[in-house]
Amino acid sequence: MNTPAPDVVRSAYAQLAVTDLGAARWFWVDMLGFHVQYEDTNSLCLRGTDELTHHSLVLRKGRIAALDHISYRVRTPEDVDKAERYFNELGCPVRRLKRGEGTHGVGDAVRVVDPLGFPVEFFHDIDRAERLIQRYDLHRGAEVARLDHFNICTPDIPAAYAHYKSLGFGCSETIEGDEHELYAAWMYRKQTVHDVAFTGGAGPRLHHLGLATHESHQVLRTADLFGAVRKEHHIERGPGRHGVSNAFYVYLRDPDGHRVEIYTSDYYTGDPGHETYRWNVHDDRRRDFWGNAVIESWYKEAAPVLDLGGNVQPVTENRLDESAVRIGADGLG
Amino acid sequence: MNTPAPDVVRSAYAQLAVTDLGAARWFWVDMLGFHVQYEDTNSLCLRGTDELTHHSLVLRKGRIAALDHISYRVRTPEDVDKAERYFNELGCPVRRLKRGEGTHGVGDAVRVVDPLGFPVEFFHDIDRAERLIQRYDLHRGAEVARLDHFNICTPDIPAAYAHYKSLGFGCSETIEGDEHELYAAWMYRKQTVHDVAFTGGAGPRLHHLGLATHESHQVLRTADLFGAVRKEHHIERGPGRHGVSNAFYVYLRDPDGHRVEIYTSDYYTGDPGHETYRWNVHDDRRRDFWGNAVIESWYKEAAPVLDLGGNVQPVTENRLDESAVRIGADGLG
Amino acid sequence: MNTPAPDVVRSAYAQLAVTDLGAARWFWVDMLGFHVQYEDTNSLCLRGTDELTHHSLVLRKGRIAALDHISYRVRTPEDVDKAERYFNELGCPVRRLKRGEGTHGVGDAVRVVDPLGFPVEFFHDIDRAERLIQRYDLHRGAEVARLDHFNICTPDIPAAYAHYKSLGFGCSETIEGDEHELYAAWMYRKQTVHDVAFTGGAGPRLHHLGLATHESHQVLRTADLFGAVRKEHHIERGPGRHGVSNAFYVYLRDPDGHRVEIYTSDYYTGDPGHETYRWNVHDDRRRDFWGNAVIESWYKEAAPVLDLGGNVQPVTENRLDESAVRIGADGLG
Amino acid sequence: MNTPAPDVVRSAYAQLAVTDLGAARWFWVDMLGFHVQYEDTNSLCLRGTDELTHHSLVLRKGRIAALDHISYRVRTPEDVDKAERYFNELGCPVRRLKRGEGTHGVGDAVRVVDPLGFPVEFFHDIDRAERLIQRYDLHRGAEVARLDHFNICTPDIPAAYAHYKSLGFGCSETIEGDEHELYAAWMYRKQTVHDVAFTGGAGPRLHHLGLATHESHQVLRTADLFGAVRKEHHIERGPGRHGVSNAFYVYLRDPDGHRVEIYTSDYYTGDPGHETYRWNVHDDRRRDFWGNAVIESWYKEAAPVLDLGGNVQPVTENRLDESAVRIGADGLG
Repeated sequence: MNTPAPDVVRSAYAQLAVTDLGAARWFWVDMLGFHVQYEDTNSLCLRGTDELTHHSLVLRKGRIAALDHISYRVRTPEDVDKAERYFNELGCPVRRLKRGEGTHGVGDAVRVVDPLGFPVEFFHDIDRAERLIQRYDLHRGAEVARLDHFNICTPDIPAAYAHYKSLGFGCSETIEGDEHELYAAWMYRKQTVHDVAFTGGAGPRLHHLGLATHESHQVLRTADLFGAVRKEHHIERGPGRHGVSNAFYVYLRDPDGHRVEIYTSDYYTGDPGHETYRWNVHDDRRRDFWGNAVIESWYKEAAPVLDLGGNVQPVTENRLDESAVRIGADGLG
Repeated sequence: MNTPAPDVVRSAYAQLAVTDLGAARWFWVDMLGFHVQYEDTNSLCLRGTDELTHHSLVLRKGRIAALDHISYRVRTPEDVDKAERYFNELGCPVRRLKRGEGTHGVGDAVRVVDPLGFPVEFFHDIDRAERLIQRYDLHRGAEVARLDHFNICTPDIPAAYAHYKSLGFGCSETIEGDEHELYAAWMYRKQTVHDVAFTGGAGPRLHHLGLATHESHQVLRTADLFGAVRKEHHIERGPGRHGVSNAFYVYLRDPDGHRVEIYTSDYYTGDPGHETYRWNVHDDRRRDFWGNAVIESWYKEAAPVLDLGGNVQPVTENRLDESAVRIGADGLG
Repeated sequence: MNTPAPDVVRSAYAQLAVTDLGAARWFWVDMLGFHVQYEDTNSLCLRGTDELTHHSLVLRKGRIAALDHISYRVRTPEDVDKAERYFNELGCPVRRLKRGEGTHGVGDAVRVVDPLGFPVEFFHDIDRAERLIQRYDLHRGAEVARLDHFNICTPDIPAAYAHYKSLGFGCSETIEGDEHELYAAWMYRKQTVHDVAFTGGAGPRLHHLGLATHESHQVLRTADLFGAVRKEHHIERGPGRHGVSNAFYVYLRDPDGHRVEIYTSDYYTGDPGHETYRWNVHDDRRRDFWGNAVIESWYKEAAPVLDLGGNVQPVTENRLDESAVRIGADGLG
Repeated sequence: MNTPAPDVVRSAYAQLAVTDLGAARWFWVDMLGFHVQYEDTNSLCLRGTDELTHHSLVLRKGRIAALDHISYRVRTPEDVDKAERYFNELGCPVRRLKRGEGTHGVGDAVRVVDPLGFPVEFFHDIDRAERLIQRYDLHRGAEVARLDHFNICTPDIPAAYAHYKSLGFGCSETIEGDEHELYAAWMYRKQTVHDVAFTGGAGPRLHHLGLATHESHQVLRTADLFGAVRKEHHIERGPGRHGVSNAFYVYLRDPDGHRVEIYTSDYYTGDPGHETYRWNVHDDRRRDFWGNAVIESWYKEAAPVLDLGGNVQPVTENRLDESAVRIGADGLG
């Protein structure tokens, strides 16, 4: 393709449709500790305490629980134009939104349905927000510091890899079969392990949002808080240590079933020529470094994604099934 | 019974038969961080870095993996005599051992097979050991601070409860059915949640030894260390938070299958009239506060125990099966 | 003396006079995370989240900031009578209080001015309180778990040592000069490093209350919270590691100047014959294991104590001055 | 200036002259936990366990303790040429080194004495190193993960700021007087708070190297280890929380007096237009968020730096003295 790709800075925010805004507020604000930057009767704009832009999560009241869009910040205003041309040339549905037409706090933006079927936004301009990094008195719950990444389900991992590669993303880690068939990949623009990762499965669906916190005791506290109020069924998997990324994690499900990972302690990937680290699908430490089995729902369940008109996108079944690899503790027995 | 019970101070040490002393040394010393206080060709005497007595774990080379005995320290030399009379009156097998006849470092002792079928020692006199609490340079691995408790499998929990009650133990927590039938109990002499606990199951068998460490990051580090050397299959369950005791834990299996819990952060029980906290067997937070399922092997597997002649004790099947309670995440599905 | 001493279980609570109850509430409840068990217009009864009795701290509105009394729980109701006889025989001022006459929630009690000049209460009966150990949703601030100890200033450390020895306290650690002259001592009834400690200085005065929290990150968080709201001047010393006790600490001053220590991770002292660990006054690790200098105010300032009539007790100057030991980082230069 | 600046990726390594290589090995390897990647009789190449390049610290045997050079990695081989032209045009001493002529493991490089008088290297090519991120069994001591930053003493902070600005560095935080006179600045290329910071003082001198570790308990453990072996005098300042950067720190001095900071938990700065956060020099939280006083030696002492011929550079006294600001706990009284 001749059209240059936009210069993506990082995964910036996700907008989720939730069926009960009050229940969602309980989960994301009261329990996880997101800071409410803006709210009206139909939506909440939330951010972590390290974030200096308007939001990293938008909850929008909807009839069904789904992903409205994931959103990447680009380096310059011109990169929004580049994104528009790039996805037009790919033949994707594209819509341009001026400030005020799209999400609150966000300026000029482009929304597309990418070749993988995902609703994706690119923007540069976003409102600034007051620094809360040292407002420890406002830190609560999981003490969410910032959005770290999106994890998406797609049936064709090599296609997802190729698409994000052409968008300029690096690849930090993969899970591969004995013949190097690709089961999963972690790709980044900012200098962490990932901004986006692909989990093999029926797709397009949203697997989870990854939220960064600073230390492992905050991950443990998150789980303790759900146990304390007898809402332990919101904890789906973990806490545990990932093989991939080396991060310490816990996965939770919100009242609509949206999955979120509280995540801490990955590593720097900013050097030129940073090499991809490849896990064999038979290494039972890849998904949990301690060899604990993955919960079946974690492999199988994910949220539908919407198209630019707000309709649910149809899904395609996956080709390679990592959860069918029945070796060690990590495959499902 | 007319004979007064000995005044038990605390769970003091366990002596395990292991089939490969070198493999056991790797696990307990190199990986868990026990300090070697004494060793000869057939045995190792180990202690945690907070312990000021000669050992809290003895590993003895044996043909089969089994429990030689658990051992309680009593308050005075006279309490050893009391123990002898007490178990004689109960009609239990009893053997008196002078210093040098029993375990290295331990003085005058009495060994019995208690009414539950367990080999149990009572002693007062034991060699002192150099203070290592602040020798951070010698702390390694799990940074084991001290032995915390024994957990034993027995088919008759009410009988175990009654026996230890008559030995003067308090009861901090229980798991009970809707009709208050007793599934499990945690009993103490020192001012923590327990010195001994009972897990329903075929018995007499040793379920696990509980070792205290100071903070939860040390529990996480323990698991990370096993993953790092690709020995993650030694991790059986957790890390996780117990409902009972509120402690943060991980369960490991040594090369012979002996189970050990690295355990941190329980609570003070030393007040007079400390009340028993009762969990209902249907509360899926009782075994894991986060509602994570218990691994089947954790409920089913345990180590044989020896009699005073060194022969394996026969086991009796259990009556109530907690693992058959199929509600929530915690029963086995 | 012929009269037997009462059987003390542990340091149970302190009652402080504060000049501004609202300011005190901000400090102890909002910032440190004490749970309010009872309040009226003149007082607050507070407890840590691990405590199962009515309070461990009472704040009482007063004209001047002072210690009303420290209070020990005794093993049986009869031990209250023993305390009355014991201090009567010592010739101390003694007052008996029935339930309702003394502090809210406390039953039959005896208050004395002990031979060191301190107002001290002994009681057995106290109201129970709901278990909050696992109510992580209610844990805030320093996440105070329980009262750990009292630290008192007295000019005559050997006299203080002898008095508490005769009350049946053990001695875990001391600071001593080259000729074994006693600069400070830590004494216990419950199985921790101390229930009471003596700091050399003009006395009787209250040096500080020690509050236990579970892990060191909670101590750090406490300090961060005061910085966050620009009240960092309430932090007097630390965070740091004590040589004595090995605990990790931070010292704060409340709005009236009452000093409190947030304290974690000491060690078990419950064995018979537990040996005293002796620090030389010239070891600069004794007060801070990292050799950081002690703040002068920490050595010099303390709160006045009241007599049984509510009047401030006169103080006597100290004899040995530990802060004058000018070796290493820890003496004041 | 017309010549484009090289594209700096990050602070990459420092080379220190030490007078006793064995003593330095004890400090940096045994105590701090650096991994030895290469050694010969005159030097040691060390790296943190997250680093994938040959070294981040080189210790070279020398007659006097000094900084040989700090070194930045640049994005491409051509950026090395750019660096050569850039500093030539500035009229600085410049030397080109082919692989084998300079530091072991490093390819083509340029060394300069920059306009501030510091010996600085720029390179692109460096040997790769085996991934140790998950080799927890090799983590020791401070568990150093990676080099984070250089902190340099210079008498003219505005000049230092301007020089690094022209090299393309962003500025995350400053300390400023009431008239915005610059006392200190933190500047970055990678997406953290800094790669280099300037402390006002006689210069050119090296103030410290900043090393990243993952969690605060590792910082505490570092201090505990020095106390344990009675080398607590190597701890100069902290542990504490910085106001600037929000990181949790401890400062140590190596056997030659070289200062090192163990540092954890700063924040993401990678967004376009990341705004500088400005601290007033009278805010006593700027240097320690808890208001603890800075040790005088920390402000006054620093290591000499060498020129390209290996001779000590003369120093110029500073103009603005932050340590003379006598407000709050943080100025020196």
